[in-house]
Amino acid sequence: MDNLLTSSLELAGTFAFALSGIKLASGKQIDWFGAYLVGLATAIGGGTIRDILLDVTPFWMLHSKYFITTAVALLAFLIFNDKIFRWWNALLVFDAIGLGLFTMAGLSKSVATGLPFWVCIAMGTITGSIGGVIRDVLLNEVPLLLRRDIYALACVTGGLVYFGCIYLKLPTSVTEMIAGSIIILIRLLSIHFHIHLPVLKIKNGK
Amino acid sequence: MDNLLTSSLELAGTFAFALSGIKLASGKQIDWFGAYLVGLATAIGGGTIRDILLDVTPFWMLHSKYFITTAVALLAFLIFNDKIFRWWNALLVFDAIGLGLFTMAGLSKSVATGLPFWVCIAMGTITGSIGGVIRDVLLNEVPLLLRRDIYALACVTGGLVYFGCIYLKLPTSVTEMIAGSIIILIRLLSIHFHIHLPVLKIKNGK
Amino acid sequence: MDNLLTSSLELAGTFAFALSGIKLASGKQIDWFGAYLVGLATAIGGGTIRDILLDVTPFWMLHSKYFITTAVALLAFLIFNDKIFRWWNALLVFDAIGLGLFTMAGLSKSVATGLPFWVCIAMGTITGSIGGVIRDVLLNEVPLLLRRDIYALACVTGGLVYFGCIYLKLPTSVTEMIAGSIIILIRLLSIHFHIHLPVLKIKNGK
Repeated sequence: MDNLLTSSLELAGTFAFALSGIKLASGKQIDWFGAYLVGLATAIGGGTIRDILLDVTPFWMLHSKYFITTAVALLAFLIFNDKIFRWWNALLVFDAIGLGLFTMAGLSKSVATGLPFWVCIAMGTITGSIGGVIRDVLLNEVPLLLRRDIYALACVTGGLVYFGCIYLKLPTSVTEMIAGSIIILIRLLSIHFHIHLPVLKIKNGK
Repeated sequence: MDNLLTSSLELAGTFAFALSGIKLASGKQIDWFGAYLVGLATAIGGGTIRDILLDVTPFWMLHSKYFITTAVALLAFLIFNDKIFRWWNALLVFDAIGLGLFTMAGLSKSVATGLPFWVCIAMGTITGSIGGVIRDVLLNEVPLLLRRDIYALACVTGGLVYFGCIYLKLPTSVTEMIAGSIIILIRLLSIHFHIHLPVLKIKNGK
Repeated sequence: MDNLLTSSLELAGTFAFALSGIKLASGKQIDWFGAYLVGLATAIGGGTIRDILLDVTPFWMLHSKYFITTAVALLAFLIFNDKIFRWWNALLVFDAIGLGLFTMAGLSKSVATGLPFWVCIAMGTITGSIGGVIRDVLLNEVPLLLRRDIYALACVTGGLVYFGCIYLKLPTSVTEMIAGSIIILIRLLSIHFHIHLPVLKIKNGK
């Protein structure tokens, strides 16, 4: 992928992730700085866990743009408040783009370390989705990820497509573009058509 | 211990741990894939934290059997549903076996790195019990571990017995068998006889 | 700073942090050992996350005094119960001292590894404040840190002062004393005068 484009989309994804944290914090008697921290944890949480598991330096230590983007997200929220959610659909698209890009970033970073394919898929999924789990745990909610949205499953599917493309010997850039797009597409379609996985129920257990 | 036996018991323990996560998820409007993730986090969470603290590669990256066993646990739940809990007592036994084996695995791994004995006991306890804490935090409950069950205390006791046996110069295999059995026994006895530690109360503090 | 003094104050801070965990646990049907674990997680959680991010051996593995201090805190709670909170103001002072010292410890440790200044400030803040976040997540509350107290912001301010002093070429010991005192002062003043950051509100968003 074009480097500048990837980099811009990554920041847009970070912005959308951070804003989702700030938005959820806004209903919970949380102060400005607390909201910033929740936004930051949402944006960088998944990649941090991935880097800890891979035993490499957490990515956000190498560049301040993630901290700054989160500050911009908070500022945008303070200025525009509820108006920002008139563009909610745009934000959901950015969030989906973030999910696709973050998952691809996690996948590539893991493939580079020579891990087996299913570990790479797990790493991609962790990169894309743990941030939202941390957000929900901090704000004392059952993670949305677990509840209904097709989120982690989009990452896993994208990961499988990724290795399918590799198997077909497609070039890496094409592979990443296809797999990333699949994730974004699954995520957007599942939101648009309200597609959910079935809820796990127990009949009459204790 | 016999290697094949240990390996089989480890999978049985993983199965029981995963099922305890899936079961708790089943009452909470969580979808199939979410339940799988909770089961997985319960089964591999403790060992993952241990490996991060020891700065070694997380154990589940080296073998796919933990991911597969969790999938089998979900499948078993989907097929048998509440019937599976007719064997609940069997599951509690497996869970206790898992606790004993996981704790021993954590202990041995830490002893091998030359850490002081009390750190090794902490590592064993983390390996055996943090998975359940992650499960409860994800599902928005106060961890069972903290509440009433003799769980972490069984791990600590087993750890002390372990170093007692080492002090008496018993061979490692005998030591592990004794200490592991003690953990399983304490756990099962405390369940059977409803033995709890006293709850910490405050009289009239704020 | 004088080494013996720092060391004593560090234990006083650990004691206050542990006691804050034990106190919060006491209203929640948690048993003695569970309360010990919550106290321990509160006292060592922040430094552990810092050490994992820095990829060094967690500090508590190198010395048993943190485990012992937490045990002393539990013992003090069991013996004195609510009487201990007649000295609550003294405890808040110790807690603030702990915050200042822990943050300084995190800062220095990060500066020594040559990280950029804003990562060092983040590390200091993590060291000082994540323990309380873990405590609140374990006990199923929205972290106090996020809610109203000026806590993490005191750490960040202290961190900025730290690098201001470094820029002015003050000696390290003086720098640490000034920056640590600023954190303690901000924390105590914000408690005393009930100074809070504004809560983030959303007008009528979804």
